[in-house]
Amino acid sequence: MDLPGYYEFCCRVKIIAGHDALEKIPDALAQLNAGRPMIVTDKGVAGAGLIDIVVDAIKDGVTIREIADDVPPDSDLRVVNRLAHVYREKGCDSLIAVGGGSVMDTAKGINIVVSEKADDLMKFSGAHVLKRPLKAMVAIPTTAGTGSEVTIIAVIKDHEKHLKMLFASYFLLPDVSIVDSRMTLTLPPAITAATGMDALSHAVEAYTCLSKNPLSDAHALAAISLIGKHLVRVTKNPGDREGRLAMANAATLAGIAFSNSMVGMVHTLGHSVGSMCGIPHGVCMAILLPYGLEYNMHKSGHFTAELLLPLAGAEVYAGTMKERRTEEVIALIRRMNQELHDATDGRHPRFFKEILDNEGIQMVPKEKLPDVAKTALGDGSIVYNPEELDYDDFLMVMEAAWEGKPLDKNRIKKG
Amino acid sequence: MDLPGYYEFCCRVKIIAGHDALEKIPDALAQLNAGRPMIVTDKGVAGAGLIDIVVDAIKDGVTIREIADDVPPDSDLRVVNRLAHVYREKGCDSLIAVGGGSVMDTAKGINIVVSEKADDLMKFSGAHVLKRPLKAMVAIPTTAGTGSEVTIIAVIKDHEKHLKMLFASYFLLPDVSIVDSRMTLTLPPAITAATGMDALSHAVEAYTCLSKNPLSDAHALAAISLIGKHLVRVTKNPGDREGRLAMANAATLAGIAFSNSMVGMVHTLGHSVGSMCGIPHGVCMAILLPYGLEYNMHKSGHFTAELLLPLAGAEVYAGTMKERRTEEVIALIRRMNQELHDATDGRHPRFFKEILDNEGIQMVPKEKLPDVAKTALGDGSIVYNPEELDYDDFLMVMEAAWEGKPLDKNRIKKG
Repeated sequence: MDLPGYYEFCCRVKIIAGHDALEKIPDALAQLNAGRPMIVTDKGVAGAGLIDIVVDAIKDGVTIREIADDVPPDSDLRVVNRLAHVYREKGCDSLIAVGGGSVMDTAKGINIVVSEKADDLMKFSGAHVLKRPLKAMVAIPTTAGTGSEVTIIAVIKDHEKHLKMLFASYFLLPDVSIVDSRMTLTLPPAITAATGMDALSHAVEAYTCLSKNPLSDAHALAAISLIGKHLVRVTKNPGDREGRLAMANAATLAGIAFSNSMVGMVHTLGHSVGSMCGIPHGVCMAILLPYGLEYNMHKSGHFTAELLLPLAGAEVYAGTMKERRTEEVIALIRRMNQELHDATDGRHPRFFKEILDNEGIQMVPKEKLPDVAKTALGDGSIVYNPEELDYDDFLMVMEAAWEGKPLDKNRIKKG
Repeated sequence: MDLPGYYEFCCRVKIIAGHDALEKIPDALAQLNAGRPMIVTDKGVAGAGLIDIVVDAIKDGVTIREIADDVPPDSDLRVVNRLAHVYREKGCDSLIAVGGGSVMDTAKGINIVVSEKADDLMKFSGAHVLKRPLKAMVAIPTTAGTGSEVTIIAVIKDHEKHLKMLFASYFLLPDVSIVDSRMTLTLPPAITAATGMDALSHAVEAYTCLSKNPLSDAHALAAISLIGKHLVRVTKNPGDREGRLAMANAATLAGIAFSNSMVGMVHTLGHSVGSMCGIPHGVCMAILLPYGLEYNMHKSGHFTAELLLPLAGAEVYAGTMKERRTEEVIALIRRMNQELHDATDGRHPRFFKEILDNEGIQMVPKEKLPDVAKTALGDGSIVYNPEELDYDDFLMVMEAAWEGKPLDKNRIKKG
């Protein structure tokens, strides 16, 4: 594809980060002329005691009108409408989303309904349909991974009609994101590992795919440097506050990077296998990331090579022959997955074959791979991948990632 | 000073950058519901043909109602009021500022007057006095240096009353900044050198001063890396489009960095000597930057050491002993100044003693140094400097920078 003679970069979100960032929420809301928030979260986050921490930090500065803690793992139109109703009934004037992707998306959906007085959310789906600012929204991520706190996207599912509504608008950006180390301090090691690799995949694809630019590069490199230093360490030492804050900052930086330069085939295949087999997104990213770099090597290998510097440091980078750096980055990411596997007593999987459900049954059976490849063909994120892929290419990559073997070099395109 | 347990980071400006970025202005204005801009610039910019380039790029997409090309080198309250009157008379709905710091500040001042229907600008001076969005504003920097296109600051002088009004507000951020290589392609070598060193000083002080944070660090490191690769090269080869774009991006990244983490003693002394002796800001920054790093070495030398990586690359960094890196960064910046001096036939000065006016008279006479030191004591930017300075310290630094000699190590504080 032809790239235009310009690139755009924008992140309007104010980021407040630190070990004591939550305490700044009342000030931040006051600056937005708000002070009666509704907290939106899920049972997992509340059960882990994180809402208690948030409430303690802000209760003297704002009047919390409602704590809605029943967002399902998958955003749902009926839940959005019900919580919008509660928001109005309780006289709220702002939203505080505490959680992961589904919680953020649900809060964004509620915000559209209450701000636009929408009875039909569908009217506002699509790209850039919203025309004016919504109610004040604060996002507090509880995993260091998705980057939802800095993206313009929301996905809401209508489970009755089997519809998936996508919303994309600058007005969906939270006004403020709070990156506080307390929110990830109790994250279990396997989720720390998978969500951290999700952040790494955002940054690496942002840096190596077609829509990269110097501004998103700055964010991607900073994220990769933090992840290279801290992800394995914090998975081994979950109580490491500095490491937790570094990973939370990395996830936000990676989120800013990829939402300004898009992603590629790692996400294309990850969306497909994740939704068809019920595998967490971060796990798919962790497994597929080295394959994406391997497959695109002849097109973007020179960019991949540069990542050895933030991932491994100047000494390793300078000590590795130039023509070996691309392969070393790929090998290093595979070693990271192995280290995370070891640090989580095997709970962080290295390839799809070894992912089992509670009954010991493979979640990605080999027979499903052709369907995964077929579904991937229809995913939009492939547009920005350096090299093209057809059905056979997708299947080849999935087969290798299933077994945990490097790609067959004779079958990769040479350019 | 005690630093709080959080840091804030925000840059709301949409950045459109590239070799063909100007052409996106009509779309950007349309998204802001505007289309009848007033162009604000100065005779130098217009005389260099840059307004012709801007007008050519946008005239089919917007109705330019007025081109005001008489902004003086120093922003002036009477000019602001006169141009605000013209803006209203011509029925403009937006501002396009094309130029350096004074043009940007003037446009910001006009915007306050026309948006707030202000008859007395003074009412809005100070920090965070503005309470709502102003008219749409597009900033097009014509030097790769100041970073004004991404700062929340404007300074307007009332020359009649000898007043300097400072405005600081998120609402003063331009909505869009256009970073286009055509705007700096004809910048003379000496101005390229001085403004590039200004950008370097923003990034280096952002990274080494007390209010640094991981988000501003990401921007600072990216800026320093681009400046390290391109500044000397583009000063030698002014027509290098890629180098021009890289330097323009670097200046914007450095602007985002320092406006989120402040600066230190290099700016403190630079403001003082610049305004007292009429020396361009970038020249002051270039001369003073190595002295700031030297003076603060025992407090922030470990951060300075890290800058060898983006400035000189991984091979040099890895090949330099750890305990030598700080001094090597300082030496390298002095060598950059020497190379820029050579590349500009001596027009980029290396120390204050050698700056002469048109009649060959020293612009910074040695007898003025005590006054420069005295004035520096009252400058607010010193708050974020790693080490404290009293009058004697300021004078010692100025005397060394006047002669072009390193600081006397026996007279620097040890912590």
